[in-house]
Amino acid sequence: MGINPADFAKMQARIAKPSRMPAPVLAPKAISPARAHEVILGIDPSLRGTGYGILQNSKPQPRLLAQGTIRSPAGWARSRCLVNTAQVLRDAIKQHQPTVCAIEGLFYAHNLQTALIMGEARGVCLLAAAEAGLEICEIAPRKVKQAIVGYGAAQKLAVAKMVQRMLHLAETPEPDAADALALVLAFLHEGRGFGSTTLKKL
Amino acid sequence: MGINPADFAKMQARIAKPSRMPAPVLAPKAISPARAHEVILGIDPSLRGTGYGILQNSKPQPRLLAQGTIRSPAGWARSRCLVNTAQVLRDAIKQHQPTVCAIEGLFYAHNLQTALIMGEARGVCLLAAAEAGLEICEIAPRKVKQAIVGYGAAQKLAVAKMVQRMLHLAETPEPDAADALALVLAFLHEGRGFGSTTLKKL
Repeated sequence: MGINPADFAKMQARIAKPSRMPAPVLAPKAISPARAHEVILGIDPSLRGTGYGILQNSKPQPRLLAQGTIRSPAGWARSRCLVNTAQVLRDAIKQHQPTVCAIEGLFYAHNLQTALIMGEARGVCLLAAAEAGLEICEIAPRKVKQAIVGYGAAQKLAVAKMVQRMLHLAETPEPDAADALALVLAFLHEGRGFGSTTLKKL
Repeated sequence: MGINPADFAKMQARIAKPSRMPAPVLAPKAISPARAHEVILGIDPSLRGTGYGILQNSKPQPRLLAQGTIRSPAGWARSRCLVNTAQVLRDAIKQHQPTVCAIEGLFYAHNLQTALIMGEARGVCLLAAAEAGLEICEIAPRKVKQAIVGYGAAQKLAVAKMVQRMLHLAETPEPDAADALALVLAFLHEGRGFGSTTLKKL
């Protein structure tokens, strides 16, 4: 029932391919190897639907501890959405005690206003994780998709289906939670040869 | 020694002029009038140099309670800067008990990466204010400059000098702190005819 070693080998080969992604703006910093962490949190931040997932780094495959989408209704003021997001994340961290957080890195936004609002959600997620003492690392979304599905521009559903398969879940996780779980899975591969240039300490 | 009523009249006239600023993306929501608030916090967020200022809404002129720039050295990881910013703001809020927060609204960023990083700082500031129960409102930076200096594209130093004059300070505040204080002064003018379209509840 574990993840097929051949699958991992394929993933590593995919990641090793030269990429046309722009280099990160800030210099990469060292992050502890994946094997140093027992419980890992993944976050896919957005204002009204932040996805999160927490996995235990167990054998033969990672075990799901928690996952969900933090919903904030359209009628709520932005500040209220941010408070809600922070509170749910803090509760999840308190309950499952992850020691590292993987978050989406380089991303695409339609315009500056969107980037600003996404940034606000991201800042709140980073704060919740950092104040709980977690190490934080960024993984570019394209790299995550390449590692999980083998195709950098994969659709959300394809990622969710593969996450379901890799974790042996009875149901396909919701798209935002699946993206968060995919970040954790991509982080775990780091210990198996994932290029260090893909991870950036935040 | 108070602010000259003629100065206020001029400021109001300036703000009343039609503006070519784009309309806010989100619908404006009601915010309590300035006279309902005794102590006001202004924040000019940035990753490594968030400016803040706290004024008491007293007569004949507002009284300075606190101001400063929250510095985070260039060597610090982004998450550490965010934690530092949140902690200093929370301490200042705890000490002076403001009930409303004015923050910069529409802004300019060079690119999406800059907008994202500015957004992260902004999200953390919004969270610190909202979790302390403050009302939050956005004021467009151009509107603040128009209200304080009478010129929307005013230089930072011009804003700082005018803030110093309006608050009868012995020294010119640092630029980021001055911008935060200017936000509070602009917010206070709201009670004296500042257009409600300028303030947006967040």
